[in-house]
Amino acid sequence: MKFVTFQHDGRRKVGVIDPDTQRVWPIESVLGGPVRDMLDLIRRHDAAKGEMTLGSVGIPLADVRVDAPIPRPDRNIFCVGKNYHDHAHEFTRSGFDAGSKVAADAIPEAPIFFTKPPETVIANGDPIRYPHGVSDSLDYEAELGVVIGKGGRGITKADAYDHVFGYVIINDMTARDWQSRHKQWFLGKSFDTFCPMGPWLATADEVDAANLGLRCWVNDELRQNANTRDLIFDIPTMIETLSAGITLYPGDIIATGTPAGVGIGFNPPKFLKPGDRVTVEIDGLGRLSNLLD
Amino acid sequence: MKFVTFQHDGRRKVGVIDPDTQRVWPIESVLGGPVRDMLDLIRRHDAAKGEMTLGSVGIPLADVRVDAPIPRPDRNIFCVGKNYHDHAHEFTRSGFDAGSKVAADAIPEAPIFFTKPPETVIANGDPIRYPHGVSDSLDYEAELGVVIGKGGRGITKADAYDHVFGYVIINDMTARDWQSRHKQWFLGKSFDTFCPMGPWLATADEVDAANLGLRCWVNDELRQNANTRDLIFDIPTMIETLSAGITLYPGDIIATGTPAGVGIGFNPPKFLKPGDRVTVEIDGLGRLSNLLD
Repeated sequence: MKFVTFQHDGRRKVGVIDPDTQRVWPIESVLGGPVRDMLDLIRRHDAAKGEMTLGSVGIPLADVRVDAPIPRPDRNIFCVGKNYHDHAHEFTRSGFDAGSKVAADAIPEAPIFFTKPPETVIANGDPIRYPHGVSDSLDYEAELGVVIGKGGRGITKADAYDHVFGYVIINDMTARDWQSRHKQWFLGKSFDTFCPMGPWLATADEVDAANLGLRCWVNDELRQNANTRDLIFDIPTMIETLSAGITLYPGDIIATGTPAGVGIGFNPPKFLKPGDRVTVEIDGLGRLSNLLD
Repeated sequence: MKFVTFQHDGRRKVGVIDPDTQRVWPIESVLGGPVRDMLDLIRRHDAAKGEMTLGSVGIPLADVRVDAPIPRPDRNIFCVGKNYHDHAHEFTRSGFDAGSKVAADAIPEAPIFFTKPPETVIANGDPIRYPHGVSDSLDYEAELGVVIGKGGRGITKADAYDHVFGYVIINDMTARDWQSRHKQWFLGKSFDTFCPMGPWLATADEVDAANLGLRCWVNDELRQNANTRDLIFDIPTMIETLSAGITLYPGDIIATGTPAGVGIGFNPPKFLKPGDRVTVEIDGLGRLSNLLD
Protein backbone atom coordinates (compact mmCIF):
# COMPACT_ATOMS: atom_id res chain seq x y z
CA MET A 1 0.00 0.00 0.00
CA LYS A 2 1.01 3.61 -0.55
CA PHE A 3 -0.15 5.78 2.33
CA VAL A 4 -0.48 9.56 2.24
CA THR A 5 -1.37 12.30 4.67
CA PHE A 6 -3.55 14.86 2.94
CA GLN A 7 -5.95 17.73 3.50
CA HIS A 8 -9.46 17.76 2.11
CA ASP A 9 -12.58 19.66 3.12
CA GLY A 10 -10.51 21.55 5.69
CA ARG A 11 -9.44 18.41 7.53
CA ARG A 12 -6.19 16.46 7.65
CA LYS A 13 -6.68 12.77 6.86
CA VAL A 14 -4.73 9.60 6.14
CA GLY A 15 -5.40 7.75 2.92
CA VAL A 16 -4.25 5.32 0.28
CA ILE A 17 -2.95 6.79 -2.95
CA ASP A 18 -2.98 5.35 -6.46
CA PRO A 19 -0.41 7.29 -8.49
CA ASP A 20 -1.69 5.83 -11.78
CA THR A 21 -5.26 7.09 -11.46
CA GLN A 22 -4.10 10.11 -9.41
CA ARG A 23 -6.66 9.45 -6.71
CA VAL A 24 -6.64 9.07 -2.96
CA TRP A 25 -9.02 7.04 -0.79
CA PRO A 26 -9.41 8.25 2.79
CA ILE A 27 -9.05 5.59 5.48
CA GLU A 28 -12.34 5.67 7.32
CA SER A 29 -11.54 3.14 10.00
CA VAL A 30 -9.02 0.60 11.23
CA LEU A 31 -10.37 -2.25 13.36
CA GLY A 32 -13.68 -0.40 13.55
CA GLY A 33 -12.25 2.87 14.92
CA PRO A 34 -11.12 6.11 13.29
CA VAL A 35 -7.45 6.78 12.47
CA ARG A 36 -6.12 9.98 13.97
CA ASP A 37 -3.02 10.38 11.81
CA MET A 38 -0.20 8.45 10.14
CA LEU A 39 1.61 7.79 13.44
CA ASP A 40 -1.60 6.34 14.83
CA LEU A 41 -1.95 4.15 11.73
CA ILE A 42 1.64 2.91 12.04
CA ARG A 43 1.20 2.08 15.74
CA ARG A 44 -1.92 0.05 15.00
CA HIS A 45 -0.87 -1.42 11.71
CA ASP A 46 0.27 -4.81 12.89
CA ALA A 47 -3.14 -5.42 14.41
CA ALA A 48 -4.89 -3.69 11.55
CA LYS A 49 -3.78 -5.73 8.55
CA GLY A 50 -6.79 -6.49 6.43
CA GLU A 51 -9.12 -4.65 8.76
CA MET A 52 -9.05 -1.29 7.05
CA THR A 53 -12.10 0.46 5.60
CA LEU A 54 -11.53 2.92 2.79
CA GLY A 55 -13.88 5.58 1.51
CA SER A 56 -15.76 4.24 -1.51
CA VAL A 57 -14.96 7.21 -3.72
CA GLY A 58 -11.42 8.07 -4.73
CA ILE A 59 -10.76 11.80 -4.47
CA PRO A 60 -8.79 13.31 -7.36
CA LEU A 61 -5.32 14.40 -6.19
CA ALA A 62 -6.01 17.78 -7.77
CA ASP A 63 -8.67 18.38 -5.10
CA VAL A 64 -6.42 17.74 -2.10
CA ARG A 65 -3.21 19.05 -0.60
CA VAL A 66 -0.72 16.22 0.02
CA ASP A 67 1.29 16.75 3.22
CA ALA A 68 4.46 14.93 4.21
CA PRO A 69 3.48 11.35 5.13
CA ILE A 70 4.52 11.98 8.75
CA PRO A 71 4.11 15.76 8.94
CA ARG A 72 5.54 16.03 12.44
CA PRO A 73 7.57 13.04 13.67
CA ASP A 74 7.44 12.41 17.43
CA ARG A 75 11.15 13.03 17.83
CA ASN A 76 14.17 13.97 15.76
CA ILE A 77 14.81 12.02 12.59
CA PHE A 78 17.77 9.62 12.80
CA CYS A 79 20.21 10.18 9.93
CA VAL A 80 23.25 8.26 8.73
CA GLY A 81 26.19 10.10 7.16
CA LYS A 82 28.83 8.95 4.69
CA ASN A 83 27.01 5.73 3.89
CA TYR A 84 27.92 5.32 0.20
CA HIS A 85 31.59 4.80 -0.77
CA ASP A 86 31.73 7.36 -3.58
CA HIS A 87 29.98 10.01 -1.49
CA ALA A 88 32.22 9.36 1.53
CA HIS A 89 35.22 10.05 -0.69
CA GLU A 90 33.74 13.17 -2.31
CA PHE A 91 32.76 14.57 1.09
CA THR A 92 36.20 14.08 2.66
CA ARG A 93 37.89 15.41 -0.50
CA SER A 94 35.70 18.55 -0.40
CA GLY A 95 37.25 19.73 2.87
CA PHE A 96 33.79 20.20 4.47
CA ASP A 97 34.11 17.05 6.63
CA ALA A 98 35.39 18.36 9.96
CA GLY A 99 36.00 14.81 11.20
CA SER A 100 38.07 13.42 8.32
CA LYS A 101 40.57 15.46 6.39
CA VAL A 102 42.55 12.73 4.66
CA ALA A 103 41.46 10.13 2.11
CA ALA A 104 42.52 7.23 4.35
CA ASP A 105 39.82 8.27 6.88
CA ALA A 106 37.03 8.74 4.33
CA ILE A 107 35.23 5.41 4.75
CA PRO A 108 33.70 5.07 8.23
CA GLU A 109 34.36 1.92 10.23
CA ALA A 110 31.00 2.18 12.00
CA PRO A 111 27.73 3.92 11.04
CA ILE A 112 27.70 7.65 11.77
CA PHE A 113 24.40 8.91 13.20
CA PHE A 114 23.11 12.44 13.74
CA THR A 115 19.60 13.93 13.86
CA LYS A 116 17.28 16.54 12.35
CA PRO A 117 14.42 18.10 14.38
CA PRO A 118 10.81 17.11 13.58
CA GLU A 119 10.01 20.64 12.43
CA THR A 120 12.44 20.41 9.50
CA VAL A 121 9.89 18.22 7.69
CA ILE A 122 8.07 19.72 4.71
CA ALA A 123 5.93 18.16 1.99
CA ASN A 124 6.49 17.51 -1.68
CA GLY A 125 6.02 20.89 -3.37
CA ASP A 126 6.61 23.00 -0.26
CA PRO A 127 9.31 25.65 -0.54
CA ILE A 128 12.71 25.13 1.10
CA ARG A 129 13.46 28.37 2.90
CA TYR A 130 16.71 29.89 1.66
CA PRO A 131 18.52 31.19 4.76
CA HIS A 132 19.61 34.57 3.43
CA GLY A 133 22.40 36.06 5.52
CA VAL A 134 22.87 32.83 7.50
CA SER A 135 24.31 30.39 4.96
CA ASP A 136 25.20 30.55 1.27
CA SER A 137 26.40 26.96 0.89
CA LEU A 138 23.21 24.93 0.71
CA ASP A 139 23.34 21.40 -0.60
CA TYR A 140 20.91 18.53 -1.34
CA GLU A 141 21.18 14.87 -0.33
CA ALA A 142 18.78 12.35 -1.89
CA GLU A 143 18.10 9.53 0.56
CA LEU A 144 15.97 6.50 1.20
CA GLY A 145 14.04 6.92 4.46
CA VAL A 146 13.14 3.88 6.58
CA VAL A 147 10.03 4.12 8.78
CA ILE A 148 9.98 1.88 11.86
CA GLY A 149 6.82 -0.15 12.52
CA LYS A 150 7.25 -2.38 15.53
CA GLY A 151 9.52 -0.73 18.11
CA GLY A 152 12.17 -2.36 20.23
CA ARG A 153 15.63 -2.33 21.77
CA GLY A 154 18.45 -4.71 21.00
CA ILE A 155 17.02 -5.61 17.59
CA THR A 156 19.34 -8.01 15.74
CA LYS A 157 20.19 -7.77 12.05
CA ALA A 158 18.27 -10.99 11.46
CA ASP A 159 15.07 -9.48 12.88
CA ALA A 160 15.55 -5.94 11.60
CA TYR A 161 13.24 -6.06 8.59
CA ASP A 162 10.39 -7.25 10.84
CA HIS A 163 10.57 -3.79 12.44
CA VAL A 164 10.24 -1.83 9.20
CA PHE A 165 6.84 -0.38 8.38
CA GLY A 166 7.83 1.15 5.07
CA TYR A 167 9.91 3.57 3.02
CA VAL A 168 9.81 7.18 1.93
CA ILE A 169 11.98 9.63 -0.02
CA ILE A 170 13.94 12.19 2.02
CA ASN A 171 16.04 15.14 0.92
CA ASP A 172 18.55 15.69 3.71
CA MET A 173 19.20 19.39 3.05
CA THR A 174 22.45 20.71 4.48
CA ALA A 175 24.17 24.05 5.08
CA ARG A 176 27.75 22.95 4.40
CA ASP A 177 29.44 25.91 6.10
CA TRP A 178 27.50 25.26 9.32
CA GLN A 179 28.09 21.51 9.10
CA SER A 180 31.82 22.13 8.89
CA ARG A 181 32.26 25.10 11.25
CA HIS A 182 30.28 23.56 14.12
CA LYS A 183 32.04 20.14 13.86
CA GLN A 184 29.03 18.04 14.82
CA TRP A 185 26.71 17.96 11.81
CA PHE A 186 23.44 18.63 13.64
CA LEU A 187 23.26 22.42 13.19
CA GLY A 188 23.97 22.44 9.46
CA LYS A 189 21.36 19.72 8.92
CA SER A 190 18.58 21.23 10.99
CA PHE A 191 17.49 24.58 9.60
CA ASP A 192 13.74 25.02 9.24
CA THR A 193 12.40 23.23 6.09
CA PHE A 194 15.60 21.15 5.69
CA CYS A 195 13.80 17.80 5.49
CA PRO A 196 11.52 17.51 2.44
CA MET A 197 9.77 14.13 2.71
CA GLY A 198 7.26 12.30 0.53
CA PRO A 199 5.15 12.17 -1.48
CA TRP A 200 3.94 8.89 -0.02
CA LEU A 201 4.95 6.18 2.44
CA ALA A 202 5.14 2.75 0.78
CA THR A 203 4.71 -0.29 3.00
CA ALA A 204 7.69 -2.62 3.21
CA ASP A 205 6.15 -5.24 0.91
CA GLU A 206 6.01 -2.76 -1.99
CA VAL A 207 9.74 -2.47 -2.68
CA ASP A 208 13.05 -4.29 -2.30
CA ALA A 209 14.80 -1.69 -0.16
CA ALA A 210 18.22 -3.25 -0.79
CA ASN A 211 17.93 -2.68 -4.53
CA LEU A 212 16.31 0.65 -5.36
CA GLY A 213 17.42 3.09 -8.02
CA LEU A 214 17.74 6.61 -6.63
CA ARG A 215 18.10 9.78 -8.71
CA CYS A 216 18.36 13.48 -7.97
CA TRP A 217 18.12 16.50 -10.24
CA VAL A 218 18.87 20.14 -9.65
CA ASN A 219 16.62 21.87 -12.12
CA ASP A 220 17.11 19.73 -15.27
CA GLU A 221 20.58 18.44 -14.43
CA LEU A 222 20.88 14.87 -13.16
CA ARG A 223 23.27 15.02 -10.22
CA GLN A 224 22.83 11.75 -8.31
CA ASN A 225 22.14 8.36 -9.90
CA ALA A 226 22.77 5.36 -7.68
CA ASN A 227 21.30 2.26 -6.10
CA THR A 228 20.68 1.40 -2.47
CA ARG A 229 22.57 -1.86 -2.97
CA ASP A 230 25.72 0.27 -2.63
CA LEU A 231 25.04 1.34 0.95
CA ILE A 232 28.15 0.84 3.12
CA PHE A 233 26.03 -0.09 6.17
CA ASP A 234 22.80 -1.80 5.16
CA ILE A 235 19.39 -1.32 6.75
CA PRO A 236 19.68 -4.26 9.19
CA THR A 237 23.06 -2.96 10.38
CA MET A 238 21.61 0.54 10.91
CA ILE A 239 18.69 -0.80 12.92
CA GLU A 240 20.87 -3.11 15.01
CA THR A 241 23.35 -0.33 15.76
CA LEU A 242 20.72 2.28 16.61
CA SER A 243 18.62 -0.01 18.79
CA ALA A 244 21.54 -1.42 20.77
CA GLY A 245 21.18 1.39 23.30
CA ILE A 246 18.13 3.31 22.11
CA THR A 247 14.58 1.93 22.18
CA LEU A 248 12.99 2.48 18.77
CA TYR A 249 9.31 3.43 18.49
CA PRO A 250 6.70 3.08 15.74
CA GLY A 251 7.02 6.02 13.37
CA ASP A 252 10.74 6.59 13.97
CA ILE A 253 12.47 7.57 10.74
CA ILE A 254 15.99 6.71 9.60
CA ALA A 255 17.47 8.64 6.65
CA THR A 256 19.97 6.16 5.28
CA GLY A 257 22.59 8.42 3.70
CA THR A 258 23.20 9.88 0.26
CA PRO A 259 25.24 8.66 -2.72
CA ALA A 260 27.81 10.67 -4.70
CA GLY A 261 26.84 13.73 -6.69
CA VAL A 262 26.06 16.36 -4.07
CA GLY A 263 27.03 19.98 -4.70
CA ILE A 264 30.32 19.84 -2.79
CA GLY A 265 31.35 16.85 -4.91
CA PHE A 266 32.06 19.32 -7.73
CA ASN A 267 35.13 21.54 -8.00
CA PRO A 268 34.28 24.32 -7.45
CA PRO A 269 31.22 23.31 -5.40
CA LYS A 270 27.79 23.81 -6.97
CA PHE A 271 25.75 25.26 -4.12
CA LEU A 272 21.99 25.71 -4.44
CA LYS A 273 20.64 29.17 -5.23
CA PRO A 274 17.23 30.72 -4.60
CA GLY A 275 14.93 29.60 -7.41
CA ASP A 276 16.63 26.22 -7.87
CA ARG A 277 14.44 23.13 -7.80
CA VAL A 278 15.63 19.86 -6.24
CA THR A 279 13.85 16.69 -7.39
CA VAL A 280 14.47 13.25 -5.93
CA GLU A 281 13.10 10.02 -7.37
CA ILE A 282 13.35 6.52 -5.91
CA ASP A 283 11.97 3.39 -7.61
CA GLY A 284 8.49 2.70 -6.26
CA LEU A 285 8.47 5.72 -3.97
CA GLY A 286 7.57 8.48 -6.41
CA ARG A 287 9.10 11.92 -6.83
CA LEU A 288 9.83 14.58 -4.24
CA SER A 289 10.32 18.04 -5.69
CA ASN A 290 10.95 21.31 -3.85
CA LEU A 291 11.86 24.84 -4.88
CA LEU A 292 14.34 26.98 -2.95
CA ASP A 293 12.44 30.09 -2.01
CA MET B 1 9.34 29.95 41.47
CA LYS B 2 10.47 26.36 41.54
CA PHE B 3 8.19 24.17 39.43
CA VAL B 4 7.94 20.39 39.65
CA THR B 5 6.10 17.63 37.85
CA PHE B 6 4.87 15.07 40.35
CA GLN B 7 2.47 12.19 40.86
CA HIS B 8 -0.08 12.15 43.65
CA ASP B 9 -3.32 10.26 44.07
CA GLY B 10 -2.58 8.37 40.87
CA ARG B 11 -2.41 11.52 38.74
CA ARG B 12 0.48 13.47 37.25
CA LYS B 13 0.37 17.16 38.14
CA VAL B 14 2.42 20.33 37.95
CA GLY B 15 3.19 22.19 41.17
CA VAL B 16 5.37 24.63 43.05
CA ILE B 17 7.95 23.15 45.41
CA ASP B 18 9.44 24.59 48.60
CA PRO B 19 12.65 22.66 49.30
CA ASP B 20 12.90 24.12 52.83
CA THR B 21 9.55 22.84 54.08
CA GLN B 22 9.72 19.82 51.72
CA ARG B 23 6.25 20.50 50.38
CA VAL B 24 4.62 20.87 46.99
CA TRP B 25 1.53 22.89 46.08
CA PRO B 26 -0.35 21.68 42.99
CA ILE B 27 -1.18 24.34 40.42
CA GLU B 28 -4.96 24.25 40.18
CA SER B 29 -5.41 26.80 37.42
CA VAL B 30 -3.66 29.34 35.23
CA LEU B 31 -5.80 32.19 33.90
CA GLY B 32 -8.88 30.33 35.16
CA GLY B 33 -8.15 27.07 33.30
CA PRO B 34 -6.43 23.83 34.27
CA VAL B 35 -2.77 23.16 33.43
CA ARG B 36 -2.20 19.96 31.50
CA ASP B 37 1.53 19.56 32.10
CA MET B 38 4.80 21.47 32.39
CA LEU B 39 5.01 22.15 28.64
CA ASP B 40 1.49 23.60 28.77
CA LEU B 41 2.51 25.79 31.71
CA ILE B 42 5.62 27.03 29.89
CA ARG B 43 3.63 27.84 26.75
CA ARG B 44 1.13 29.89 28.76
CA HIS B 45 3.49 31.34 31.29
CA ASP B 46 3.99 34.75 29.74
CA ALA B 47 0.28 35.33 29.83
CA ALA B 48 -0.08 33.62 33.17
CA LYS B 49 2.20 35.65 35.39
CA GLY B 50 0.40 36.44 38.62
CA GLU B 51 -2.70 34.58 37.49
CA MET B 52 -1.89 31.22 39.02
CA THR B 53 -4.03 29.48 41.64
CA LEU B 54 -2.30 27.02 43.93
CA GLY B 55 -3.83 24.34 46.11
CA SER B 56 -4.25 25.70 49.64
CA VAL B 57 -2.57 22.72 51.28
CA GLY B 58 1.09 21.88 50.67
CA ILE B 59 1.57 18.14 50.15
CA PRO B 60 4.60 16.63 51.91
CA LEU B 61 7.22 15.55 49.35
CA ALA B 62 7.29 12.18 51.07
CA ASP B 63 3.75 11.57 49.80
CA VAL B 64 4.48 12.21 46.11
CA ARG B 65 6.73 10.90 43.37
CA VAL B 66 8.70 13.72 41.75
CA ASP B 67 9.14 13.19 38.00
CA ALA B 68 11.57 15.02 35.72
CA PRO B 69 10.28 18.60 35.33
CA ILE B 70 9.66 17.96 31.61
CA PRO B 71 9.22 14.18 31.61
CA ARG B 72 9.02 13.91 27.82
CA PRO B 73 10.29 16.92 25.85
CA ASP B 74 8.57 17.55 22.52
CA ARG B 75 11.75 16.93 20.55
CA ASN B 76 15.38 15.99 21.13
CA ILE B 77 17.31 17.96 23.72
CA PHE B 78 19.89 20.35 22.24
CA CYS B 79 23.33 19.81 23.81
CA VAL B 80 26.57 21.75 23.57
CA GLY B 81 29.90 19.92 23.72
CA LYS B 82 33.37 21.07 24.82
CA ASN B 83 32.05 24.29 26.32
CA TYR B 84 34.46 24.71 29.26
CA HIS B 85 38.18 25.21 28.57
CA ASP B 86 39.52 22.66 31.05
CA HIS B 87 37.06 20.01 29.91
CA ALA B 88 37.77 20.65 26.22
CA HIS B 89 41.45 19.98 26.94
CA GLU B 90 40.81 16.85 29.04
CA PHE B 91 38.46 15.44 26.37
CA THR B 92 40.89 15.95 23.50
CA ARG B 93 43.79 14.63 25.64
CA SER B 94 41.77 11.48 26.46
CA GLY B 95 41.77 10.28 22.86
CA PHE B 96 37.96 9.83 22.88
CA ASP B 97 37.32 12.98 20.80
CA ALA B 98 37.03 11.67 17.24
CA GLY B 99 37.03 15.23 15.87
CA SER B 100 40.15 16.62 17.56
CA LYS B 101 43.25 14.59 18.21
CA VAL B 102 45.78 17.34 18.94
CA ALA B 103 45.88 19.93 21.71
CA ALA B 104 45.86 22.84 19.25
CA ASP B 105 42.34 21.79 18.12
CA ALA B 106 40.92 21.31 21.62
CA ILE B 107 39.10 24.64 22.02
CA PRO B 108 36.22 24.98 19.54
CA GLU B 109 35.94 28.12 17.45
CA ALA B 110 32.14 27.85 17.30
CA PRO B 111 29.62 26.10 19.56
CA ILE B 112 29.29 22.36 18.91
CA PHE B 113 25.69 21.08 19.04
CA PHE B 114 24.31 17.56 19.12
CA THR B 115 21.09 16.06 20.51
CA LYS B 116 19.66 13.44 22.87
CA PRO B 117 16.21 11.87 22.27
CA PRO B 118 13.30 12.85 24.53
CA GLU B 119 13.07 9.31 25.91
CA THR B 120 16.52 9.57 27.52
CA VAL B 121 14.99 11.75 30.25
CA ILE B 122 14.63 10.24 33.72
CA ALA B 123 13.87 11.80 37.09
CA ASN B 124 15.96 12.43 40.18
CA GLY B 125 16.27 9.07 41.90
CA ASP B 126 15.46 6.96 38.84
CA PRO B 127 18.03 4.30 37.93
CA ILE B 128 20.38 4.85 35.00
CA ARG B 129 20.29 1.60 33.04
CA TYR B 130 23.78 0.10 32.75
CA PRO B 131 24.08 -1.22 29.17
CA HIS B 132 25.65 -4.60 29.91
CA GLY B 133 27.27 -6.07 26.83
CA VAL B 134 26.84 -2.85 24.85
CA SER B 135 29.23 -0.39 26.51
CA ASP B 136 31.62 -0.54 29.45
CA SER B 137 32.84 3.05 29.28
CA LEU B 138 30.03 5.07 30.82
CA ASP B 139 30.71 8.60 31.96
CA TYR B 140 28.82 11.46 33.66
CA GLU B 141 28.64 15.12 32.63
CA ALA B 142 27.13 17.63 35.07
CA GLU B 143 25.45 20.46 33.15
CA LEU B 144 23.23 23.49 33.48
CA GLY B 145 20.09 23.06 31.38
CA VAL B 146 18.34 26.10 29.86
CA VAL B 147 14.60 25.83 29.20
CA ILE B 148 13.23 28.08 26.46
CA GLY B 149 10.08 30.08 27.23
CA LYS B 150 9.19 32.34 24.32
CA GLY B 151 10.12 30.70 21.03
CA GLY B 152 11.59 32.34 17.96
CA ARG B 153 14.05 32.29 15.07
CA GLY B 154 16.94 34.70 14.58
CA ILE B 155 17.09 35.59 18.26
CA THR B 156 19.97 37.99 18.94
CA LYS B 157 22.33 37.75 21.89
CA ALA B 158 20.84 40.96 23.26
CA ASP B 159 17.34 39.45 23.34
CA ALA B 160 18.34 35.91 24.30
CA TYR B 161 17.55 36.03 28.02
CA ASP B 162 14.00 37.21 27.20
CA HIS B 163 13.48 33.76 25.68
CA VAL B 164 14.59 31.79 28.74
CA PHE B 165 11.89 30.35 30.96
CA GLY B 166 14.20 28.82 33.51
CA TYR B 167 16.95 26.40 34.47
CA VAL B 168 17.36 22.78 35.49
CA ILE B 169 20.17 20.35 36.32
CA ILE B 170 21.07 17.80 33.63
CA ASN B 171 23.45 14.84 33.72
CA ASP B 172 24.52 14.30 30.11
CA MET B 173 25.38 10.60 30.44
CA THR B 174 27.73 9.29 27.75
CA ALA B 175 29.03 5.95 26.47
CA ARG B 176 32.56 7.06 25.54
CA ASP B 177 33.35 4.09 23.28
CA TRP B 178 30.22 4.74 21.20
CA GLN B 179 30.84 8.49 21.15
CA SER B 180 34.30 7.88 19.74
CA ARG B 181 33.68 4.92 17.43
CA HIS B 182 30.66 6.44 15.68
CA LYS B 183 32.36 9.87 15.15
CA GLN B 184 29.21 11.96 15.59
CA TRP B 185 28.41 12.03 19.31
CA PHE B 186 24.67 11.36 19.05
CA LEU B 187 24.72 7.56 19.53
CA GLY B 188 26.96 7.57 22.59
CA LYS B 189 24.83 10.27 24.21
CA SER B 190 21.43 8.75 23.53
CA PHE B 191 21.06 5.40 25.24
CA ASP B 192 17.83 4.96 27.19
CA THR B 193 17.96 6.76 30.60
CA PHE B 194 21.02 8.83 29.60
CA CYS B 195 19.46 12.17 30.55
CA PRO B 196 18.72 12.46 34.28
CA MET B 197 17.01 15.84 34.80
CA GLY B 198 15.68 17.67 37.84
CA PRO B 199 14.65 17.79 40.58
CA TRP B 200 12.91 21.05 39.77
CA LEU B 201 12.74 23.77 37.12
CA ALA B 202 13.62 27.20 38.54
CA THR B 203 12.28 30.24 36.74
CA ALA B 204 14.87 32.58 35.26
CA ASP B 205 14.47 35.20 37.99
CA GLU B 206 15.59 32.73 40.66
CA VAL B 207 19.26 32.44 39.69
CA ASP B 208 22.09 34.27 37.92
CA ALA B 209 22.75 31.66 35.24
CA ALA B 210 26.08 33.24 34.34
CA ASN B 211 27.45 32.67 37.84
CA LEU B 212 26.36 29.35 39.27
CA GLY B 213 28.50 26.91 41.19
CA LEU B 214 28.21 23.37 39.80
CA ARG B 215 29.45 20.21 41.53
CA CYS B 216 29.37 16.51 40.73
CA TRP B 217 30.14 13.51 42.90
CA VAL B 218 30.56 9.85 42.03
CA ASN B 219 29.58 8.11 45.25
CA ASP B 220 31.37 10.29 47.87
CA GLU B 221 34.15 11.57 45.62
CA LEU B 222 33.87 15.14 44.36
CA ARG B 223 34.76 14.99 40.66
CA GLN B 224 33.54 18.26 39.13
CA ASN B 225 33.58 21.63 40.86
CA ALA B 226 33.20 24.63 38.59
CA ASN B 227 31.17 27.75 37.81
CA THR B 228 29.04 28.60 34.79
CA ARG B 229 30.95 31.87 34.44
CA ASP B 230 33.67 29.76 32.78
CA LEU B 231 31.51 28.67 29.82
CA ILE B 232 33.38 29.19 26.53
CA PHE B 233 30.16 30.10 24.70
CA ASP B 234 27.67 31.81 26.99
CA ILE B 235 23.92 31.30 27.02
CA PRO B 236 23.12 34.25 24.69
CA THR B 237 25.66 32.94 22.17
CA MET B 238 24.15 29.46 22.31
CA ILE B 239 20.62 30.77 21.75
CA GLU B 240 21.69 33.09 18.92
CA THR B 241 23.61 30.31 17.18
CA LEU B 242 20.90 27.70 17.55
CA SER B 243 18.05 29.98 16.50
CA ALA B 244 19.83 31.41 13.43
CA GLY B 245 18.41 28.61 11.30
CA ILE B 246 16.18 26.67 13.70
CA THR B 247 12.94 28.04 15.16
CA LEU B 248 12.97 27.47 18.92
CA TYR B 249 9.78 26.53 20.75
CA PRO B 250 8.60 26.87 24.35
CA GLY B 251 9.92 23.93 26.36
CA ASP B 252 13.01 23.37 24.23
CA ILE B 253 15.97 22.39 26.41
CA ILE B 254 19.64 23.27 25.91
CA ALA B 255 22.25 21.35 27.93
CA THR B 256 25.10 23.84 28.10
CA GLY B 257 28.14 21.58 28.41
CA THR B 258 30.19 20.13 31.25
CA PRO B 259 33.32 21.35 33.07
CA ALA B 260 36.48 19.34 33.74
CA GLY B 261 36.48 16.28 35.95
CA VAL B 262 34.64 13.65 33.91
CA GLY B 263 35.80 10.03 34.07
CA ILE B 264 37.94 10.19 30.94
CA GLY B 265 39.78 13.17 32.40
CA PHE B 266 41.64 10.72 34.64
CA ASN B 267 44.54 8.50 33.55
CA PRO B 268 43.53 5.72 33.42
CA PRO B 269 39.88 6.73 32.87
CA LYS B 270 37.46 6.21 35.78
CA PHE B 271 34.40 4.76 34.09
CA LEU B 272 31.15 4.30 36.00
CA LYS B 273 30.28 0.83 37.28
CA PRO B 274 26.94 -0.75 38.18
CA GLY B 275 26.06 0.39 41.71
CA ASP B 276 27.80 3.77 41.40
CA ARG B 277 25.78 6.86 42.28
CA VAL B 278 26.16 10.13 40.36
CA THR B 279 25.04 13.29 42.16
CA VAL B 280 24.98 16.72 40.58
CA GLU B 281 24.34 19.96 42.46
CA ILE B 282 23.94 23.46 41.04
CA ASP B 283 23.41 26.58 43.18
CA GLY B 284 19.69 27.28 43.46
CA LEU B 285 18.69 24.24 41.40
CA GLY B 286 18.94 21.48 43.99
CA ARG B 287 20.52 18.06 43.70
CA LEU B 288 20.07 15.40 41.05
CA SER B 289 21.15 11.93 42.16
CA ASN B 290 20.92 8.66 40.22
CA LEU B 291 22.21 5.14 40.74
CA LEU B 292 23.60 2.99 37.95
CA ASP B 293 21.50 -0.11 37.91
